[in-house]
Amino acid sequence: MSAGWFRRRFLPGGLLSAPGPSRPRASPVPYRRPRFLRGSGSGPGPADASRRPDARPVRSPARGRALPWNAGYAEIINAEKSEFNEDQASCGKLCIRRCEFGAEEDQEWLTLCPEEFLTGHYWALFDGHGGPAAAILAANTLHSCLRRQLEAVVEGMVAAQPPMHLSGHCICPSDPQFVEEKGIRAEDLVIGALESAFQECDEVIGRELEASGQVGGCTALVAVSLQGKLYVANAGDSRAILVRRDEVRPLSSEFTPETERQRIQQLAFVYPELLAGEFTRLEFPRRLKGDDLGQKVLFRDHHMSGWGYKCVEKSDLKYPLIHGQGRQARLLGTLAVSRGLGDHQLRVLDTDIQLKPFLLSVPQVTVLDVDQLELQEEDVVVMATDGLWDVLSNEQVARLVRSFLPGNREDPHRCTAHPWEGHVEGCSPAQSNDPISPLSQSLLSFFLLATLAVQKQLSIRVSHQWWATRRPGRRT
Amino acid sequence: MSAGWFRRRFLPGGLLSAPGPSRPRASPVPYRRPRFLRGSGSGPGPADASRRPDARPVRSPARGRALPWNAGYAEIINAEKSEFNEDQASCGKLCIRRCEFGAEEDQEWLTLCPEEFLTGHYWALFDGHGGPAAAILAANTLHSCLRRQLEAVVEGMVAAQPPMHLSGHCICPSDPQFVEEKGIRAEDLVIGALESAFQECDEVIGRELEASGQVGGCTALVAVSLQGKLYVANAGDSRAILVRRDEVRPLSSEFTPETERQRIQQLAFVYPELLAGEFTRLEFPRRLKGDDLGQKVLFRDHHMSGWGYKCVEKSDLKYPLIHGQGRQARLLGTLAVSRGLGDHQLRVLDTDIQLKPFLLSVPQVTVLDVDQLELQEEDVVVMATDGLWDVLSNEQVARLVRSFLPGNREDPHRCTAHPWEGHVEGCSPAQSNDPISPLSQSLLSFFLLATLAVQKQLSIRVSHQWWATRRPGRRT
Repeated sequence: MSAGWFRRRFLPGGLLSAPGPSRPRASPVPYRRPRFLRGSGSGPGPADASRRPDARPVRSPARGRALPWNAGYAEIINAEKSEFNEDQASCGKLCIRRCEFGAEEDQEWLTLCPEEFLTGHYWALFDGHGGPAAAILAANTLHSCLRRQLEAVVEGMVAAQPPMHLSGHCICPSDPQFVEEKGIRAEDLVIGALESAFQECDEVIGRELEASGQVGGCTALVAVSLQGKLYVANAGDSRAILVRRDEVRPLSSEFTPETERQRIQQLAFVYPELLAGEFTRLEFPRRLKGDDLGQKVLFRDHHMSGWGYKCVEKSDLKYPLIHGQGRQARLLGTLAVSRGLGDHQLRVLDTDIQLKPFLLSVPQVTVLDVDQLELQEEDVVVMATDGLWDVLSNEQVARLVRSFLPGNREDPHRCTAHPWEGHVEGCSPAQSNDPISPLSQSLLSFFLLATLAVQKQLSIRVSHQWWATRRPGRRT
Repeated sequence: MSAGWFRRRFLPGGLLSAPGPSRPRASPVPYRRPRFLRGSGSGPGPADASRRPDARPVRSPARGRALPWNAGYAEIINAEKSEFNEDQASCGKLCIRRCEFGAEEDQEWLTLCPEEFLTGHYWALFDGHGGPAAAILAANTLHSCLRRQLEAVVEGMVAAQPPMHLSGHCICPSDPQFVEEKGIRAEDLVIGALESAFQECDEVIGRELEASGQVGGCTALVAVSLQGKLYVANAGDSRAILVRRDEVRPLSSEFTPETERQRIQQLAFVYPELLAGEFTRLEFPRRLKGDDLGQKVLFRDHHMSGWGYKCVEKSDLKYPLIHGQGRQARLLGTLAVSRGLGDHQLRVLDTDIQLKPFLLSVPQVTVLDVDQLELQEEDVVVMATDGLWDVLSNEQVARLVRSFLPGNREDPHRCTAHPWEGHVEGCSPAQSNDPISPLSQSLLSFFLLATLAVQKQLSIRVSHQWWATRRPGRRT
């Protein structure tokens, strides 16, 4: 990405404002549910949901179909919110090939040994919006981007310390010392690969959607197990937590217009034309109106984490860059997340104001050193999109997991398939032994729920739980 | 500050590039040591230090001269590094007046009751660079800016919850609900006032230095006690810690080119012209050279917290935006801190490249709820500039405090004056009972050391320790 990219891409007179000759339009991205749901006896679309108006089918992989680390997965398919379920997921083994350096030391990389060299595992959730296309593309693409990015640095990953030069040859005798001083570790290369993979995938999605005339975006939550560590990369408002007997540990943070307020306001401060005079970058407790003119009201600007009072001017009456609170908070009145993939063409309704310059595709990556944890049989990782976390706290989810798993030790599918498979009655009375009740009671009209049993390498058995859920639609 | 301010201020064709008619030059800022050192028997300049080449005078306030909360303060005056000691400090009572709303409800603030309404206490350290002028101006000005900012919001601070309108009148019936939903508390107004005060002080310093033809900048570390809370605001690489019997708690974070790398690179990414083609925004483990061309080397860009490899191009050989490691890290090869006051005229040597757009004057503010802590007699707060923290860790400083204070309970001046007052032998052998030894052994050529005994309101006695030190000069 060149230094002037941002400006050419987003400012007046940039690339988008001067469309080139029209190209032949590519085919739209074909819709489908995640591959691993095949054979689970459910059809592809929302038709199933209509069997009973208050019954929502829960879908998991077929019992004979194991996911990596015997992971489980379940979802409640889309009901009435949109034509297609916009959520997607993917998982699989990550096979990383090694590219060895040529014997001639000709400073070129030669692929002499393309066999699998390192293996990892990959699980990902994508919460789509504005159509399912971006989420489908991400589910199809991100793991390939990640594999490619990891293969580009795998030599550095397996060294005791990543070398300054990927060739392993020192140009400067103190190269190892410089790397040592910066504290660069092998895991930093995996973090860098995840960051680059998200960005590469975002570019692929942008190109594909433009070529096929489709739109949309998605959040991305990815867990990767590699070399004894679990990397969790998150761009959006999904969340992963580690649930242990005595501990609930968040493995990700949410990125929303609220949590990234200062970054977003800062960009509007240095590039006010991104708001095209239609929005104010200032935050107020509510949208201001004519009666507020001349009053001193609470406000925050980009440099403030505290609050101050300002005298209201006419420009403060514009619609706020970030408006609303909690679940209702929106960026430019349009989007509830501030990081994710896609949305390249997304504009504020009836304007030319683009959302993309305020969005980041880069994830935040956290690293869990699994080898350092004394994991117990029922320690689990739960990954879910915002629908679950809107209605259940980390602690409530942990209680659900702890109440269900130990009571079903004899069931070899306890982390894979669910006792509540089939249909969920939306408003049925709670049954004390039914772990789904708190969810159905919460008036979710659909959700996505997944269970992941993690089996550590070196034959130490560990179990992780992986849930995912969609944003709830209101039942009327 | 208007939306286009950044561009007009920093980009080609902006205000600075088109100088107006020259104004009569104001007098330079007069040099002096902190006011509270008067009467301590030491002169104003570096002359004292020359009495013996390896003896450095320690200076504290005179024994009869109490600082707020019976605070202590000491410094080792400048030796050879610069003509004047560039560090400054100030402390005092903060008297906040209340401005009551007029009976006519005419939506104007009337000063009906200018008496002192709230009182707090204020301690501040300023570590100057490029001359003492900015630090002196900050020591003279910042507390006044803070008082003004606090007086502007004091009505909101004393309310159960800050009102949406400072007049206390609701324009919209659900105003309190909006404030409640945003979770705005009285302490957010103090945080906002500190943030605005730093910014206001920075503007004052810019104007004063420009008018008097002087240059320079300084870091700022401020502690404010108000309404049962201790607010610590930091812009730069000074540090405050809380030392308790069983706990050492950092009360601030350092802001350096290293800790703020992503923010600084991000600005260079969206505004590449700020680097004028002379610098690369990318980070490498060391500066690249011709031999690296075409090699794949470790690098980081603005969006990465991990590391990747990139093929070196010619533009990567430019001097890095952030270069060096630890104490040697420099922004644009020039400055060791990324936040602070002043530096409005600072440019990279022999270029027109300004440092200021990359610097923030806004502090990070942390809040210590003193009322919630079960404070013991010898719990202390230590504030110091980077010289102390370069040579002693938080734990080492805590050990020094814990070993000295309890052994001197009978000394009423134990937190105010120091047994090591007088002169410090730079290289004298360590004496086991001498708490200054670890400092003198560390070959500090000068430092600033302060002790602050905090006496809580409500007659609960607490003691805090306040140290400060200058960057060490190397003894040859």
